[in-house]
Amino acid sequence: MASDPTPSRTEHDLLGELPVPVDAYYGVHTARAVDNFTISRIPLSAYPVFVIALAAVKQAAAQANRKIGVLDVDKADAIVTACEEIRSGKLHDQFVVDMIQGGAGTSTNMNANEVIANRALELLGHERGEYRYLHPLQDVNLGQSTNDVYPTAIKLAVDGYVVNLQGALDTLRESFEAKAREFSDVLTMGRTQLQDAVPMTLGQEFSAFAVTLGEDQARLEEARQLLHELNLGGTAIGTGLNAHPDYREEAVGALRTISGVSTLSSAPNLVEATQDVGVFVQLSGILKRIATKLSKTCNDLRLLSSGPQAGLNEINLPARQAGSSIMPGKVNPVIPEAVNQIAFEVIGNDVTITLAAEGGQLQLNAFEPIIAKELFAGLDHLASGSTILAQKCVDGITANQEMLRKRVSESIGLVTALSPKIGYEAATSIAKEALATGRGVIELVLDKELLTSREVDALLTPESLAGVTLHAATGE
Amino acid sequence: MASDPTPSRTEHDLLGELPVPVDAYYGVHTARAVDNFTISRIPLSAYPVFVIALAAVKQAAAQANRKIGVLDVDKADAIVTACEEIRSGKLHDQFVVDMIQGGAGTSTNMNANEVIANRALELLGHERGEYRYLHPLQDVNLGQSTNDVYPTAIKLAVDGYVVNLQGALDTLRESFEAKAREFSDVLTMGRTQLQDAVPMTLGQEFSAFAVTLGEDQARLEEARQLLHELNLGGTAIGTGLNAHPDYREEAVGALRTISGVSTLSSAPNLVEATQDVGVFVQLSGILKRIATKLSKTCNDLRLLSSGPQAGLNEINLPARQAGSSIMPGKVNPVIPEAVNQIAFEVIGNDVTITLAAEGGQLQLNAFEPIIAKELFAGLDHLASGSTILAQKCVDGITANQEMLRKRVSESIGLVTALSPKIGYEAATSIAKEALATGRGVIELVLDKELLTSREVDALLTPESLAGVTLHAATGE
Amino acid sequence: MASDPTPSRTEHDLLGELPVPVDAYYGVHTARAVDNFTISRIPLSAYPVFVIALAAVKQAAAQANRKIGVLDVDKADAIVTACEEIRSGKLHDQFVVDMIQGGAGTSTNMNANEVIANRALELLGHERGEYRYLHPLQDVNLGQSTNDVYPTAIKLAVDGYVVNLQGALDTLRESFEAKAREFSDVLTMGRTQLQDAVPMTLGQEFSAFAVTLGEDQARLEEARQLLHELNLGGTAIGTGLNAHPDYREEAVGALRTISGVSTLSSAPNLVEATQDVGVFVQLSGILKRIATKLSKTCNDLRLLSSGPQAGLNEINLPARQAGSSIMPGKVNPVIPEAVNQIAFEVIGNDVTITLAAEGGQLQLNAFEPIIAKELFAGLDHLASGSTILAQKCVDGITANQEMLRKRVSESIGLVTALSPKIGYEAATSIAKEALATGRGVIELVLDKELLTSREVDALLTPESLAGVTLHAATGE
Amino acid sequence: MASDPTPSRTEHDLLGELPVPVDAYYGVHTARAVDNFTISRIPLSAYPVFVIALAAVKQAAAQANRKIGVLDVDKADAIVTACEEIRSGKLHDQFVVDMIQGGAGTSTNMNANEVIANRALELLGHERGEYRYLHPLQDVNLGQSTNDVYPTAIKLAVDGYVVNLQGALDTLRESFEAKAREFSDVLTMGRTQLQDAVPMTLGQEFSAFAVTLGEDQARLEEARQLLHELNLGGTAIGTGLNAHPDYREEAVGALRTISGVSTLSSAPNLVEATQDVGVFVQLSGILKRIATKLSKTCNDLRLLSSGPQAGLNEINLPARQAGSSIMPGKVNPVIPEAVNQIAFEVIGNDVTITLAAEGGQLQLNAFEPIIAKELFAGLDHLASGSTILAQKCVDGITANQEMLRKRVSESIGLVTALSPKIGYEAATSIAKEALATGRGVIELVLDKELLTSREVDALLTPESLAGVTLHAATGE
Repeated sequence: MASDPTPSRTEHDLLGELPVPVDAYYGVHTARAVDNFTISRIPLSAYPVFVIALAAVKQAAAQANRKIGVLDVDKADAIVTACEEIRSGKLHDQFVVDMIQGGAGTSTNMNANEVIANRALELLGHERGEYRYLHPLQDVNLGQSTNDVYPTAIKLAVDGYVVNLQGALDTLRESFEAKAREFSDVLTMGRTQLQDAVPMTLGQEFSAFAVTLGEDQARLEEARQLLHELNLGGTAIGTGLNAHPDYREEAVGALRTISGVSTLSSAPNLVEATQDVGVFVQLSGILKRIATKLSKTCNDLRLLSSGPQAGLNEINLPARQAGSSIMPGKVNPVIPEAVNQIAFEVIGNDVTITLAAEGGQLQLNAFEPIIAKELFAGLDHLASGSTILAQKCVDGITANQEMLRKRVSESIGLVTALSPKIGYEAATSIAKEALATGRGVIELVLDKELLTSREVDALLTPESLAGVTLHAATGE
Repeated sequence: MASDPTPSRTEHDLLGELPVPVDAYYGVHTARAVDNFTISRIPLSAYPVFVIALAAVKQAAAQANRKIGVLDVDKADAIVTACEEIRSGKLHDQFVVDMIQGGAGTSTNMNANEVIANRALELLGHERGEYRYLHPLQDVNLGQSTNDVYPTAIKLAVDGYVVNLQGALDTLRESFEAKAREFSDVLTMGRTQLQDAVPMTLGQEFSAFAVTLGEDQARLEEARQLLHELNLGGTAIGTGLNAHPDYREEAVGALRTISGVSTLSSAPNLVEATQDVGVFVQLSGILKRIATKLSKTCNDLRLLSSGPQAGLNEINLPARQAGSSIMPGKVNPVIPEAVNQIAFEVIGNDVTITLAAEGGQLQLNAFEPIIAKELFAGLDHLASGSTILAQKCVDGITANQEMLRKRVSESIGLVTALSPKIGYEAATSIAKEALATGRGVIELVLDKELLTSREVDALLTPESLAGVTLHAATGE
Repeated sequence: MASDPTPSRTEHDLLGELPVPVDAYYGVHTARAVDNFTISRIPLSAYPVFVIALAAVKQAAAQANRKIGVLDVDKADAIVTACEEIRSGKLHDQFVVDMIQGGAGTSTNMNANEVIANRALELLGHERGEYRYLHPLQDVNLGQSTNDVYPTAIKLAVDGYVVNLQGALDTLRESFEAKAREFSDVLTMGRTQLQDAVPMTLGQEFSAFAVTLGEDQARLEEARQLLHELNLGGTAIGTGLNAHPDYREEAVGALRTISGVSTLSSAPNLVEATQDVGVFVQLSGILKRIATKLSKTCNDLRLLSSGPQAGLNEINLPARQAGSSIMPGKVNPVIPEAVNQIAFEVIGNDVTITLAAEGGQLQLNAFEPIIAKELFAGLDHLASGSTILAQKCVDGITANQEMLRKRVSESIGLVTALSPKIGYEAATSIAKEALATGRGVIELVLDKELLTSREVDALLTPESLAGVTLHAATGE
Repeated sequence: MASDPTPSRTEHDLLGELPVPVDAYYGVHTARAVDNFTISRIPLSAYPVFVIALAAVKQAAAQANRKIGVLDVDKADAIVTACEEIRSGKLHDQFVVDMIQGGAGTSTNMNANEVIANRALELLGHERGEYRYLHPLQDVNLGQSTNDVYPTAIKLAVDGYVVNLQGALDTLRESFEAKAREFSDVLTMGRTQLQDAVPMTLGQEFSAFAVTLGEDQARLEEARQLLHELNLGGTAIGTGLNAHPDYREEAVGALRTISGVSTLSSAPNLVEATQDVGVFVQLSGILKRIATKLSKTCNDLRLLSSGPQAGLNEINLPARQAGSSIMPGKVNPVIPEAVNQIAFEVIGNDVTITLAAEGGQLQLNAFEPIIAKELFAGLDHLASGSTILAQKCVDGITANQEMLRKRVSESIGLVTALSPKIGYEAATSIAKEALATGRGVIELVLDKELLTSREVDALLTPESLAGVTLHAATGE
């Protein structure tokens, strides 16, 4: 951390003294943590929404302590200003601890305490490190513990990332809806178990993608609300030791104002709320659900656009890049493929989060840092993936309408619509004969005088087949 | 299926003829499935709640078709009676298909259709197999497809198992609550990251177990509601092909009455509802959450009762059986250990269900049978586990109160309560000295005249330590 | 366990007295366990290979103790006879404890000890329960602990199930190999990312299925060897306390003879071997790999046989049963679908096993029962699935050769083979034009005089395209 | 990619023209990919071992093509030089594509082709982008496809990361071995199921950590060998289309020399080798096993060091940083906690990799990029974690010997050692009485005259208890 030529100041902790780069806003605890956790090389600053959330929580604490009268006004004001600067995007490069860290987030909280303290010291006209004027733990961390501050900041950050994801899912859902409208008159064969089933419209197919995404959004919003129940004020284990009796209410109130999230509230049982990471398991479960269904949707898009000749070839995804370094002219479904991979990542993250949650012991879960890392990454990647899927893929999809029309009209799947009239067993025979001879189902039914031409026509309207009225059909 | 000495009748399907045991209520399609799927040897009948749900759906369909007028009244009545018999527990041994089966549940639906048809034939005075009088597909399955009937029955069965699980969780929660009351005056050391933190009551510790379970129950109830949205009437792919326009509403209405689940309703988009298994992913995610947290609770119980001499030894679990074939007198925490294992099973099941869900293609998910199997087993095992945990473990827990009292009074964790008065850095020094010398924190603080005896007493009341008033303490 | 009318005998343990059904071979410890663990309703007897393995281990211990001279010869002989009876299939119904059980297998070991003791007592002319003549713990369990006996029996049982699975995989691999030979002359389009790539033979496609399975078999055999390293003789924690110094070697030697597994050996470090379940994690990882690849193979089979009209329709799976209760004539790929679901189950089991393994603490893993259950089920289902996939699906696959031939000859994928001669950029233009106009690649290349007809022919032989010589081609 | 002020050159692909920054070594295909895949913001350059492996493969291809005579010597030499520069660490910042990308690695291969081509052009005295002199696809990618080049480079990079991990595991294993020697004379209570079992030495406890790690290293080495089987030369789907007949052998040979990995070889069946990612599933399974067992070890370390007063307090982990922002003097096991979290991450990654593997279709797995990302991260984090666990934790562990000695001598676990002499049932009574009264086991046995003092002494030597001779004991 401090090779010879770097000018340094000396700080100390319970382990003794340590040089810290003289211009660092962080201090000895952060320096120890940087030295201890050389793991993922992904620093806290990689997740700016989280750094901002940390500063918001610290600011709320300072405001509460100022109001209650346990923190000197000058100190409080300096702390608040420092926090506001961080929230405006400054000093993020000082959040240097690895996202993977032992200690249940202590190092993250220490990093925040130190950066805020040193910036506040500057604002008060002191040097960094002169903690006798304003102390990272006694002042910035006053009435707080990592164990209430850190999960509160994670919840706030996750909430921000969820809002972002909801926006991206809106975009994707609207793209599917637009295509559903565009394809509302295009008949296609529905397939179950990859075998030809009965007709439907391509619009119905795309509409299902939109509807299923909308349901996921509802679940996500439901889970998001759980994030708003905080253990702030519980300090070390939820008993509120060392926090002023009014602190909890004041701090949560201040955080509501600062964050703009009006539904933040205090958990009914802070002991439980301090040790429980169920809210993250819940949210991760929802992300897994979104991922699972989004992956299924991408699989469908890739399948429907397979070909161009030796595949289904029913829709065309817009070309985004040359698909092969050896096969000229090949274009691949690269965007859905990328989204599939994001989905797999999120599903794996859910297992990681589950293990971390299960590993909590007694009054705390020591493994919140990995939970935070996996949630932030998953939320962020899902949002990116949804956006590119909408904008670089779905919006440009076209249908091979002529081919679809032909495929439906020649399909033996039509026999199902005739089955209620001719009976399941006769229909089975017709289907077998059609497949064996290549003759059409309608032709065979008429030949065998099972139905009249008029009866067949009545059974095979788009309305009776797909349950919808085709606009094109009405014009015929 | 039919070795020589077994008298058989002959049935046929699109593959040709096949002998079926003459006294079997199932028919050719079931016999084929039994032959095809010799996998888990767990038949449908292993899950009676599911068999009953299947019969309820079939009965609802028959009632709807009778009311609409598309099914002959005599036939309908016979079908309804057969279904009622199954719902009362009869004929379950005829549900012989393996729970793991290809075909998206077709074989299960066929099994139900055939058993109901043959029993109805009997009721009408015909022989089994005389399908010209009442046909498994044309009559029993009228207006239906496996693709709407099967998931509807799964949802109904899962709903039943969830209600059962909620009852077991109630029992367990109440056991924890009773212990929380019983231990409300017992001070103990709270621990974070397995290191001594600050005092709390054992009652708070057990209360957290109850509260966290209550939160899980709320999530479970939330997810349960999603089960009530049905795709019944959508037939093959959700377009409702071959079902009468009034069928959907009538069938759902009838099922509401039959099942007693008054919130059953029709999904707004049946195409989406037919292909989407998101509701099962959601529920499985909640089960995984319950499992994760229950496992953490069991870990805590095992840890707190570790010993008796070389462990924490703070609580005693009731002895349930001799713990060792070699170590006399050893008693193990077998009940929590069993629950841990159920939890691991449920967490693994969630991955299975996720993969099955992700594997859906186009208009259907072919892998619903494994989803059903894993959900049924998980729900059932969690309910058993919760019940035995309550009745065979938690209810009999006792606390080693004397030892806990001594441990708290000698703990260096008390220094945290003094820290606001003497400062973080002085408190750190005291803690280090106490640990190194074995002297008590209070003794050192008084010796060094950092606080007066009166100040110490005021800081170390149970109220200020654990945020609670001890009843015992008031009596002192 | 003992309602009034059942005649019972009374046994006792450290908890006191308990009635046991008078004709039960099991005793008080088993009865307690049955009462404690009403969870999965899957008794030990559901896995006969495991019951036999348990008896083999007990027999080996008795033989070793007899040889060393610490166990009376008469007692030893009776125990050995009882074990041999169990190994021959008798008394399995007496193994009644639930597969999911707390206590690290103690109840399973107790169940075995008691059944063997009571049968041995009978053989010696005593009544069941007269343990003063031969004691389940002091005699049958002599020099043993659950902690060495139970994992040894699991390893032996898993070994047996692995051998069984290898046989099933042999069958499946040979089925793929036979089809590879049968289809060695059938050209088809290779596809990457579901987009048409370059030609290959259908034989190559099926050969890859066989080769990849063969690789899995090699991994499985590799992992199987690890099962042969035993901790027998380590007793409670691997220190061998209470076992005679010669016991370990004698017992392992006897087990080698009894089981016929000649490579059984003693682990170099019994303390590690007692607490480590890495061998099961390893094996489960291999099963997961097999499942993953088998699922991919089934996905391919389902995709290649999709249609018949609105799918790839390149191969035909044999019809196994009617595919739909509503769509006459529909046939589904039910066998591969069943295997997919087994694969998902095995992948989920791997997560369960991983969690159970991670949960081991200090000198033992208490969660071996769930590990055993998941491994036994996975091995068994994979074997069933492989067998039905071979016999009920692969063996009957046919190819739509005419259509494949046409598809290859019209494919724009041929342009890749011309690319080295005409250049990547010219080839890209040709591909685009072919796709836009529907004209053939060869026609365009000749038209534009990029190549001569002779050059084209030379580039498009099966040999240069697929790297193989077609037998059919030589005949033309 | 190219805002107005950035000087740019224009390149084109099948989608048309695109400006590329004039000083970029990458070209149009890379620029498209950067635009398409704004996902994880982790560029290829984040994994330098992978960039180097890519360059090695490209160099081997160029050398092979030069030797065979299909690539002009001047071009080949320039390509080789460019690759050597990259392998020496240059130009890594030009590998800008996101690690998460669609297209089965095409964009990565394109990125490499373009950077190498442009650097080679420079070396030949041309401008970047003047591909008529040396073409990224026709020259750099000659005889290659992404589908053979990309997995080959992944295997080579994974191999490099595995070697690195093995080094870190060596360090950790040696640290455990050193502690095992240091603690070889320290008796402690062994525990099974968290209950006191029988005595052992602390040295045996640490030795087990070392031994189990050694077994993992053997498995890792076994899996590593599988990485050396390459599909290089198989081109698009393994048929070798467009590669010279001698290319495969020459390229693999060249890569052996360049990489220094002498066991690189050609897979026997290139079609299978192209589509199969089983080798990565295998390796990931091994990493999961390592993670699972390492997590168990860390759990043990945290448990054994719990306290200092209200925990086991048997060993002390070296203090690495202050453990709490609110609890003065608290020190947490931050290093094992970090390693636990890495383990959870790796276990989750295994699920991601499994899903990606299962999703492969027909002749290729499109999801290799996420497989690569998860493997690289897991290998890297495990190596870091093992190193810090050794150096910042295990090496500094001390034992609380006095307390351990006392705990063993007072333990009721000693009764097991007496059980063979006094019988299981008498021993059970003694144990119960000892626990109830607080009297010692030995005292009770002597009092009741079950054994003489001499007999007791003989049974309770360290040798008979722990199966070892204590050096300290010999001195007594």
